[in-house]
Amino acid sequence: MSAEFEMPVFEDAALAAAVQQRIDRQTKPAGSLGRLESLALQLALIQQRERPRLDAPQLVVFAADHGIAARGVSAYPSEVTAQMVLNFLAGGAAVSVLARQHGLALTVVDCGVRHAFASHPQLIVRKTAQGSADVVTQAAMTAAQCEAAISHGREVLRALPGNALLLGEMGIGNTSIAAMLMQRLTGLPLAQCTGRGTGVDDAGLARKLSVLQAALERHADVHEPLAVLAMLGGLEVATMVGAVLEAAAERRVIVVDGFISSAAVAVAAQLAPRVLGACVFSHCSAESGHALWLKHLGVQPLLDLGLRLGEGSGAALAWPLIVSAVCLLDEMASFESAGVSDRSA
Amino acid sequence: MSAEFEMPVFEDAALAAAVQQRIDRQTKPAGSLGRLESLALQLALIQQRERPRLDAPQLVVFAADHGIAARGVSAYPSEVTAQMVLNFLAGGAAVSVLARQHGLALTVVDCGVRHAFASHPQLIVRKTAQGSADVVTQAAMTAAQCEAAISHGREVLRALPGNALLLGEMGIGNTSIAAMLMQRLTGLPLAQCTGRGTGVDDAGLARKLSVLQAALERHADVHEPLAVLAMLGGLEVATMVGAVLEAAAERRVIVVDGFISSAAVAVAAQLAPRVLGACVFSHCSAESGHALWLKHLGVQPLLDLGLRLGEGSGAALAWPLIVSAVCLLDEMASFESAGVSDRSA
Repeated sequence: MSAEFEMPVFEDAALAAAVQQRIDRQTKPAGSLGRLESLALQLALIQQRERPRLDAPQLVVFAADHGIAARGVSAYPSEVTAQMVLNFLAGGAAVSVLARQHGLALTVVDCGVRHAFASHPQLIVRKTAQGSADVVTQAAMTAAQCEAAISHGREVLRALPGNALLLGEMGIGNTSIAAMLMQRLTGLPLAQCTGRGTGVDDAGLARKLSVLQAALERHADVHEPLAVLAMLGGLEVATMVGAVLEAAAERRVIVVDGFISSAAVAVAAQLAPRVLGACVFSHCSAESGHALWLKHLGVQPLLDLGLRLGEGSGAALAWPLIVSAVCLLDEMASFESAGVSDRSA
Repeated sequence: MSAEFEMPVFEDAALAAAVQQRIDRQTKPAGSLGRLESLALQLALIQQRERPRLDAPQLVVFAADHGIAARGVSAYPSEVTAQMVLNFLAGGAAVSVLARQHGLALTVVDCGVRHAFASHPQLIVRKTAQGSADVVTQAAMTAAQCEAAISHGREVLRALPGNALLLGEMGIGNTSIAAMLMQRLTGLPLAQCTGRGTGVDDAGLARKLSVLQAALERHADVHEPLAVLAMLGGLEVATMVGAVLEAAAERRVIVVDGFISSAAVAVAAQLAPRVLGACVFSHCSAESGHALWLKHLGVQPLLDLGLRLGEGSGAALAWPLIVSAVCLLDEMASFESAGVSDRSA
């Protein structure tokens, strides 16, 4: 592992004990805020302070096209990637609505969409290529492209303010990319890693499985994480890997969205395992495979709402819970300060 | 069933079809927003309009003391009910923090706390009695008191603005009340209805079960819902029943919190089954019994975060998801308006 991927330590026994004591003195039965208590503790450990603060949260949608999409693995044509980028920027997509609702700055990064966008204040163009290559016949990216995409992700993050990154993505065909990455990184059977994505029917799912099987066989000897990413991964996934590595290195809170975001985090965690300490998994998606992958990563998502949209929509929906964890830790009265009897019955 | 409990119909096939069509034309794969889509549809049916609006949401905490608490069924002494009411009003409780975060008006209704509170702009005093009686030896309330408490709940609701009610409660001993109501209304074994509440240990749980068993045997012949409520229920639960009936009659959205709020809704639903159509169940609590009760009611909660605090904290935490459902339905672009290709692959 190169020095580039060194990570801070997101553990600190003394700080954890201090935060836990603070939580346990608050006016509620011990443990009664459940998952919000462990979340508050995690946020404190990420930020290395007893009372974490969330500042200028950034929802970043990483977008790219995929050579594999031409093989009919999605219910939608590739043009939809660019069309949806325009929809994000126009404010009409689900993630646009949710970002407005929660005051999240929304940025789209063009990592390799096959479209030349007019400039827009919310658009950053960092095309590594005009879409990835067809993984059935060749590597999705060259090693140099993969490295460039990761660097782009790091650069984009460095330039963004705030201390929280919400991951989003757009790219017709990218549940195929994520399914292949899941298979290769976990060793689970491909069928358990592959879902219906935007909603392919039974015939479409069979076609998708057969295409992904062929691609995995083409790259059967590749197992090292960066090589796997270059061979199988998409440009938006590789750029996200860089963004995740940079965000964790800067001790930003990383809010992971669904199946594709989890793929990027899983690759990053193979490069630098401590990355997971900075990640809050927003939800378990309805995409077949996601629940299993979260379990494999040993993480517990906040929401389980049958979402399978991507874009960062799940991350945005979970954001208020993360804010709540911070507010509760900061603002709740203690038994002493409120004059409430603690278990004296 | 008396005319008093007549309810509007929360179904409308033509409206449902129109809303579903609107949802399906929005720029996302059909069904990909999962539970938020069925939630949006429910909100439209409650409000009888294609684009629901949420206005001046009211989080109301119903508080009372319970005779049964003297039998050591809780980890906390009865004084904590009044102390926590003061904490709500001072802004230091979990629900105070969450109400501030989400702009929810917070009102506490004293339904029968054994304490004389100084007046406060957020406090409404509607004491039906100075706490309920000990259900092991007598009825918790007389029939007249139960009727009065229900009327108080209706009156309180009528005087509050807005079109959404978030249910909260406080009352040391009230998981015991809810467990007995659950047992009597569902017929399930008491052990499956009874949890650790604020956190009793094994000995405390055994004592709690034995006390509740004695109380249920004392009132073995009571099965009619209003009589069950009077015999077993607490003053805050009875007042909540009235508030729920009134809120549903006024087509307000009712956001149900945890185990005790569910008890009130379950009683109200026995009096007027359509009430459930107006109810959004915010979360499945960690209190043993709640998951089973939600299943018994045939409802699907939004969150499952291991919460067991009450106060309305779960309802407040789920509130942003309800707002999201409304915003998404209202603001998302359609395939046509955004120029996005729909499944032309």
